[in-house]
Formats: sequence, C-alpha cells, structure tokens
Amino acid sequence: MAENNSGVNSAILLMHCPDQQGIVAKVTEFLDNNNGNIIYLDQYVDHQEKIFFMRIEWELDNFLIPAEKITDFFGTQIAARYNMRFHLYFPHQKPRMAIFVSRMSHCLYDIMSRVQTGEWDVEVPLIISNHHDLENVAKQFSVPFHVFPVTGENKAEQEEKEIELVKRTGIDFIVLARYMQIITAKMINEYPNRIINIHHSFLPAFPGAKPYHSAYTRGVKIIGATSHYVTAELDSGPIIEQDVTRISHTDSIRNLVRKGQDLEKIVLSRAILLHIQRRILVYNNKTIVFA
Amino acid sequence: MAENNSGVNSAILLMHCPDQQGIVAKVTEFLDNNNGNIIYLDQYVDHQEKIFFMRIEWELDNFLIPAEKITDFFGTQIAARYNMRFHLYFPHQKPRMAIFVSRMSHCLYDIMSRVQTGEWDVEVPLIISNHHDLENVAKQFSVPFHVFPVTGENKAEQEEKEIELVKRTGIDFIVLARYMQIITAKMINEYPNRIINIHHSFLPAFPGAKPYHSAYTRGVKIIGATSHYVTAELDSGPIIEQDVTRISHTDSIRNLVRKGQDLEKIVLSRAILLHIQRRILVYNNKTIVFA
Amino acid sequence: MAENNSGVNSAILLMHCPDQQGIVAKVTEFLDNNNGNIIYLDQYVDHQEKIFFMRIEWELDNFLIPAEKITDFFGTQIAARYNMRFHLYFPHQKPRMAIFVSRMSHCLYDIMSRVQTGEWDVEVPLIISNHHDLENVAKQFSVPFHVFPVTGENKAEQEEKEIELVKRTGIDFIVLARYMQIITAKMINEYPNRIINIHHSFLPAFPGAKPYHSAYTRGVKIIGATSHYVTAELDSGPIIEQDVTRISHTDSIRNLVRKGQDLEKIVLSRAILLHIQRRILVYNNKTIVFA
Amino acid sequence: MAENNSGVNSAILLMHCPDQQGIVAKVTEFLDNNNGNIIYLDQYVDHQEKIFFMRIEWELDNFLIPAEKITDFFGTQIAARYNMRFHLYFPHQKPRMAIFVSRMSHCLYDIMSRVQTGEWDVEVPLIISNHHDLENVAKQFSVPFHVFPVTGENKAEQEEKEIELVKRTGIDFIVLARYMQIITAKMINEYPNRIINIHHSFLPAFPGAKPYHSAYTRGVKIIGATSHYVTAELDSGPIIEQDVTRISHTDSIRNLVRKGQDLEKIVLSRAILLHIQRRILVYNNKTIVFA
Repeated sequence: MAENNSGVNSAILLMHCPDQQGIVAKVTEFLDNNNGNIIYLDQYVDHQEKIFFMRIEWELDNFLIPAEKITDFFGTQIAARYNMRFHLYFPHQKPRMAIFVSRMSHCLYDIMSRVQTGEWDVEVPLIISNHHDLENVAKQFSVPFHVFPVTGENKAEQEEKEIELVKRTGIDFIVLARYMQIITAKMINEYPNRIINIHHSFLPAFPGAKPYHSAYTRGVKIIGATSHYVTAELDSGPIIEQDVTRISHTDSIRNLVRKGQDLEKIVLSRAILLHIQRRILVYNNKTIVFA
Repeated sequence: MAENNSGVNSAILLMHCPDQQGIVAKVTEFLDNNNGNIIYLDQYVDHQEKIFFMRIEWELDNFLIPAEKITDFFGTQIAARYNMRFHLYFPHQKPRMAIFVSRMSHCLYDIMSRVQTGEWDVEVPLIISNHHDLENVAKQFSVPFHVFPVTGENKAEQEEKEIELVKRTGIDFIVLARYMQIITAKMINEYPNRIINIHHSFLPAFPGAKPYHSAYTRGVKIIGATSHYVTAELDSGPIIEQDVTRISHTDSIRNLVRKGQDLEKIVLSRAILLHIQRRILVYNNKTIVFA
Repeated sequence: MAENNSGVNSAILLMHCPDQQGIVAKVTEFLDNNNGNIIYLDQYVDHQEKIFFMRIEWELDNFLIPAEKITDFFGTQIAARYNMRFHLYFPHQKPRMAIFVSRMSHCLYDIMSRVQTGEWDVEVPLIISNHHDLENVAKQFSVPFHVFPVTGENKAEQEEKEIELVKRTGIDFIVLARYMQIITAKMINEYPNRIINIHHSFLPAFPGAKPYHSAYTRGVKIIGATSHYVTAELDSGPIIEQDVTRISHTDSIRNLVRKGQDLEKIVLSRAILLHIQRRILVYNNKTIVFA
Repeated sequence: MAENNSGVNSAILLMHCPDQQGIVAKVTEFLDNNNGNIIYLDQYVDHQEKIFFMRIEWELDNFLIPAEKITDFFGTQIAARYNMRFHLYFPHQKPRMAIFVSRMSHCLYDIMSRVQTGEWDVEVPLIISNHHDLENVAKQFSVPFHVFPVTGENKAEQEEKEIELVKRTGIDFIVLARYMQIITAKMINEYPNRIINIHHSFLPAFPGAKPYHSAYTRGVKIIGATSHYVTAELDSGPIIEQDVTRISHTDSIRNLVRKGQDLEKIVLSRAILLHIQRRILVYNNKTIVFA
C-alpha cells in the first residue's frame, strides 16, 4: 500500500468510464497543465467489461485551480468527454464514521484503539447498538452510545430512528462491527457502498448465521473472515478484504470462534482503512482496491 | 509433521472407538509389555461425539509378537474390549497408487517428479485417462498409460473396465489429478476413503464446474484449492488439505487459473503424502489428520 | 488447538525426561489407576537429543489423589524412576501477569481488551512503564500503572525497584508489550522462561533496533513478528510464535510499521494465550508448543 | 497480476528517472499521439530517493512508429528530456533461458513441466550442471545437458567455458535451480540482474550453507524461500519473491527440507515468470515488481 501522504495538502480523484485510448494522457495532462504534481497514480482496465478505472492523487499547493472549483473544471474539461463518473476527496477532511455493534466487543476495541491513537484519519461521533452490553466500552473511549433495542415488531421503526440520528450527525459511512441485525434496503439506499460489514467466514462459503458451526461440521482446514459493502442481498455485497487462518481437527467450535475473532477484527480494520483512504471503487458488485 | 522413520522396521496402528477412561494406558501397556518401543503417538478425542482416535507407531525389531499375528493379538486383547476399529500398516510395504487424469498436466508432473525421485514411498503401476493428451507425460516417466474414452452412452461400461483394470493391478488407492469425470458410486464403494480428488476452489465455496470463473465473478480476494476423499455427493467428501493464495481485481480469469494450478498441485501432493504415510482417519465425513 | 476445558476441574502435567520405552504407558496407567480421566494428551520425542516431552490433562473430580498431594505421589512413583522434570498446574488458578510498556499502545490495547472481556484466564495486577504516555490506557482499563523512568545512570536501580514490585505483587509471568528497554540478567533469572517479548521482525532476520527500516532497505517481500521468551542474549530466546504478512515495493516504512503492528499484537497475544494455557515446554533454547 | 496479453501484438517499456512533474502525462501523450492504445500502465515513485519508475504496455497494431524505430523516437523525444533509462521489450520475442543445476531435481522438474506445457513464453536451449545426476531429467524433456565438473582448481576455468557456451547460445538470462556453486563476478558482470537464484531460506535469515539445519537449531516456527538476482555479495542480491510455510517442533530437518522444497520450486517459478514478463525493475539493490 502506498504511503498515506498526511501532511501533504492534496486531492484524490477516483474515476471510471468506458475504456478508450488516451484517457491517462488527458487526465495527467490536465493536472500537469494546472501545475498539479502527481504523488499517486494507479489505473486498471477491466478488459472484459471494457471499463477504465483510475485513482490519482496530486499536491494542491501550487495547483492553479482552487479546491472548490476542481469538480467543475475537471467535470467540464475531462469527465464529460469520456462519459466518466468521478469522486473528488481531500485527505485532510476526516470522514465521519458511525459504528453499529451488538454484544461482541473485539472489533469495537480494535477500531477504537486505532481511532484513539490517531492511527486513522477519521472521526467517530457515535456508536449505535441494539443492546446495552458495550456501553462501557463506548464510555472507555468517551464516544456517545445510543441504544435502539430491536424486536420483531419495532425493527422498521427503530431503524428509521437510527437513520435519522446518523444523518443528523453528518455520518459519511457506517461500520457494522459484528452488528447482529440485518440492515434493510432503506438504510442501504441512504448509504450505498458506504456500509461496511464483517462476516465471520470466507465468503461465499458459509453465508448467514453460525458460520463457525458450519465450518466445524464441514471439516474445513482453513477458516476466514470477509469484509464487504452491504447490499440488499445478505452477505453478497462487494468484497473489500478477506483473510484466513489454518485450523485442524483438534480445534473445537470455541477455538474456531477465538481464532476467527482475531481475523474478523484485523480484516474489518483493513477494510475501514482502505475506505478512509478512498482506495476503493465499486463496479458490478466487485471492488477495485488501489493498493 | 513428525519424521517419516524410513529405515526403521516399524508398524502403524490407526484406531478409533467410543471414548472411555484408560484406553491410552491399555494400548501403550500392550506395546510396552511386548517390548515395542513407541516412536510416534498422537491421539485425539472428539468430545462432542465422544469418540477416541489414535495413531501409534512402534519399532518391530524386538517386538515379541510376529508381524503377521499383531492383528489377531491386538484385536483380541485390546480392540474387542473397547469396541475399537483399527487398521494395521507396515511402512515398508509401499502402497500402489493409480492416477486418473484428463488433459491438464500440472498435477501429474508434480506427482510423477516426486515418485521418480523417491520422495514418496509409493508405486505407480498405471495412469488412466479419458483422453490421449497426457500419454507423452506418462511416457516421460515410463508408466503404463490406459485410455478409456468416455461418452454419454459408454460411461458406465468404461468405468466398469477401469475398475476391473485397477483391481487386477492390485491398486491400493486412486488419485484424481484433475480428472474431469464424475466418479460413480460403484467405484467409490470399491475404494471408500481411498479415492483422493483435488478441487480447484476453497470448498465449500464454488463446488462443481468452473470455480475460477465463479471466483472472478464474485470478486473474492483469495482463491483456494481443496483435496478430499471422493464420496457420492459431488465435492462434499472429507477434506484432507486446503490452501489459498491472495488475488486482486487485476487478476484475469487466466491468472486465477495460473495461480490456482500452483495451489492445486501442492495441495494434492500434500494430501497424497498424508495418505501414503497413513496419517488420516475418516469419521463423520471429516478427517482427523495426525501431523 | 485443543479445547480449553474451562468449567472442568482438571490438572495439567508438563514433563520431560530422557526417552525410554514405556513412559507413556506408565504415566497413563498412573492416572488410570487413580481414576483420572485423561482429557488431553500430547507427547513428542526429540529423536536427535533423545528427550521425551509430554503434556497431559485429566479430570480431578473422581481422582483418588488429593490435588495437594499429586506432586508428591507423581514425583515419587513416576518422575523419580524416569529422571523426569515436571510441572503441575491447575487451570482454575489464574496466573498473574505484569505488562511492561513504553510508548506504543497497540499491543497493550489488544491485551487489555482480551483481559477485560474474559477471553483469557489471567489476572493483570499492574502495568509498568518507563514513560507516562500510556497511563491513560491503563486508566481506561482500571489497572494500576507504575512509571519507572530509565536513564543511563539509574537503569540498574530502577530495574531493582521493578523486580521488587513485581515480586511483591505475586506476578507469575511478565509480558513486554513493546517495552523498549533491554532486560538485564537479574530480572531474567528471577523469571526464567517467564518473560515474553514481542520483536517486530521475523527473527533471526533483523534483530535489534529499527527492524522495519532494515526490512525496507533490504527490500524483503514479507515482514514478520516474533514472540519469544527473553534470555540473556538479545532477541535470541526460545521462539514461541511467529507470523508474517506480504508487502511490496510500494510500502513505505510508515506502512511497514502499520502492517507490522497488526502482526505484533496478534502474535504476542497468541503467545500469551499459549503460556497461560501451559502449552509450552522449553528445552535447548527451543519451544515445544502442544497445540 | 495483470493479464498476460498473449496474442496481442504489443510493446513494453520499463523506465526510471529522477522524479519530476509531468512525466506520466508526457509518456502517455507520446503513445496516444502515435496511436498506441495502452493496455497496461503501472508507475511508482520512490519518494525517499525521488525516483520515478514506470511499466507501460501498448498495442502495436495501429502504432504509427515502426517497432524498430521506437527506441530512437522514444529516446530522443522523451527519455533524453527526463534523463531516463529505459528498456523496450516485445512480448512475442521469447527470451532464452539457461538453467544451472546440481543434484536436486525438484526445481528443474517444476520449471521444465511449465516450459513443456507452454505455460511460459520462454525457450530453454540448454541445461548446465557440475554433476551428471540430472542428465536423465534433461533427457526426459529433450533439452541438451552440459556437464562442467567443478573442483577447487578448475573452477575459474570451467566457469569461463560455461560463459562461453551460454553466450554462444544466445542466452538472455540464467536460472540457478539449486545450483550449489557460487557464481563469480565475471559471470555476474556478463548477466547483471539476469541471473536468478533460489535460496532455501527466508532471507536475510540464514544466508549461506545449510539453512534448514540452522532453522531447526534456532527453533523458528516458519520457514521460507527467497528468489533473488545474483550479485557479488552472497545471498544479498535484489529480492524478487519470497514465500513461507508454517512448521512446528515436530518437524525434523528432513521434514523442513521436504516442506522447503515445495516453497523453493514455487517461489523460483514465480520469479522466473515475473522476469519473463518483464515486470521487474532493479534499483538500489531492490526490485520494483509491477504486478
């Protein structure tokens, strides 16, 4: 993974468009002509779908176009010509992240310890849960903790309130840190490709409930964890990151859970960092992750 | 994995029975009383099913019971008492392995290069295929190559002939080295837990045909290979060994195939070695692999 | 790794002695005769050194010998005969662990979050540091935090005080969670094979200071972390656990540190768990780790 | 790794120069203006050394500049301006590879099986050895096998003959497939960054002789293999690829060798493929490997 250029005043463009000759030349010429020094460039062509993808980062200090006009200039002079979709980010603007949890604390601790030490450029204005169990963890890190108990009857209503709270708080993206509730289409539509889940299996193996039990019963020799963006279909969204660990017949289900939790927290945290660093493009239910 | 004690004149017992107190004591006492020096012992208790499993190897040189009577003595004095099932092996008796192939040579080359250099204590009296493509590889290693072309109509009949040939050749176990035909129940019943397959995915993800295409479409970040014993249900037999490798969005299907083939051959060869060394017990469609 | 049988009232014996015929039989017979149901047994013979190692765990509930007399009985009837060294543990007796830190918090957070949630059967009566930086983390988890600032002149004196405090607190073992001071022979002798360190490289590559810088300069494609018991020779003690992660030319030193820290905390925590579960025997500056 | 665009008539440029603003723009504009459709582009800036590196591949079919004039045009119009060093390759020109071996066949089999099946775009006109042992393997694959027995006295002389033979055969690069002789400066200078070695350890751990014995003695929990370009200093050249596998105290040296050999052959073959595909730039004794 390339250096996170903190301290540098820079801008990042994530773009994709139908592939054709000359795009890289035109985009880099645009930056060059406006005195933008490129500090990161990675591009990828999906030769099957014939789609061009690029992530480019350049220094703003001597850039001729003021930050607030880049979208207009780039949109008009480049994007329109190539039928390009793009997003502009400024690394110094910290994204605001909401964390949803239930009862297990391992992912929450891993996330909050990174936030606390400034490892990530992110803000966490709130933690939401359907249970009170992790209130003390939130308190340890002085983050407001909101409980929305969910029952069969009140689920829609409670999620409504969660959405309202999340939007009011100016949240940019949501992390489901072993949140044991299924997110409805309504919330997904509010945060498309901006809700990150961790599933405790090597997807597409063992989707749904109790994957460690299924792994034990099937007798696999390796278990995994998968972080993905949430889509309407359960455990089927674009995969951001996966990792695995070796097990054997001697591992009880309890051991699978223990070993799996170490995977879950590390895989989820890697996915969050990639998202914070705006390294991920989503297309066709897959991710392009610029390293 | 413990040392393969070639050169030592030894015997191996693989056993399992309902768990109860004192089994290890009785088995080891039996060997000790008969002057058998234990050079390997590993046991495992499935606490859920309450089954005891053990692999034990001891030197035969000063052992009081002659080799040909061990089954009788052990069966009478120990196994009967514990309702135990057991298998006795002598490492110096090389098992005879048949290899089934179709058109891809990577697994066959990997296997044959190990056989040729004496890395494994095994004999390969024949290679069977439904195509002529790999005849030259068999010729390179001077192994008889038998072609049984399979069509929709003659499949049962051809398999019949294969079984007949395999049995007549005194084959102990069969390796499907990317053999692209489904094995029928008839052959499976002749060689229960003695037909080793390599599937080119991380099972249970992507069973059946074209797993690399499925992996590409799903956008996974890791691919795998799985070696398992063949059972009646496709790609669902007891898993012997698995391994994985990391991929990214930049990997075309062709690259997945290339990277996957390296996994396939290594995973299959590891599984074959474990089988040759009699390290595998099968129970409840799972393997106990004594390392 | 075998199930940690919490809830079961059991005892664990770790033993080693010169290898000879019949040891397993005698030890298991001893337990069996005294009505001890074995729930874990693993043994290993170092054929080069001709040393026998075993870890055995059995239920105490119907065991005829009272807990406080096991050492006497086993020592007299078994250990003396085989010139055996052994240690007896009772899993329900939680070991007391001291944590030494300096300025980096990632390992401390990882450890304390496991302690807090009860993942480990351990007590942490104190954290010791040469700096005040992590006092707030200790406060988050309500663990007493003791600062012993170390300079060139006062090092011996301060360590003396640390030893005194640690001993007074009844500490069983010490974890150096990125403690940036070299431990002297005096402390090592007080806690032989009971001081666990994490080194931020794949030892024996890059011992000493600044391993990530060295890894970057050397251009390795994989970095690692190593947890080991501290001995008099720097970074040369018996290795308990190691793990690695892939890097590339695009990774800056800052990225190596970031990726490495995830390794460090997971590897250290795995080593601590193995120690807490009494799965480790040390011999000849190497570990036997019973999984 | 990006698709190997066999079948496409393309050219590849590998280049590096002092970093400055606008290079990507100028290079891509050059190709675009001459009607070259880019099918691969990856660039990297070493921010510490301030060096720019790029690999770019484009289709030749409609490219205005004839293949034989590209070096002149690009050199004059682009490279000169940026003080750039570059190499031009045509994927349809298969490089010629010499293989040096001693007595172990696992790497040779792995390489030759890939060559035989056309997995790699490479030619192997000869195999050189200091022993006769692997002559039969060369014969199996119908490759000329040349033996140059090496003694203390004749080493320089024999290497002289090898160089002469290799040059006469028009060899582009050399693979040391567990060739147990140290290569002298003379040969290295003839083939700078074009002699690929496989070392049977995770460098820089355990350089030199008998690394598996050293790994066993040190008690590491992971072993590795390293492929690197040969330089004057033993086992210290630019690392191309590494991989590792987990071991335990139960693994004898013989098992380390066995497990290590699987690593060695796969790691070496990956490195060879990267070299054949011209994905590697060497700078400052490190490799930039464009995936």
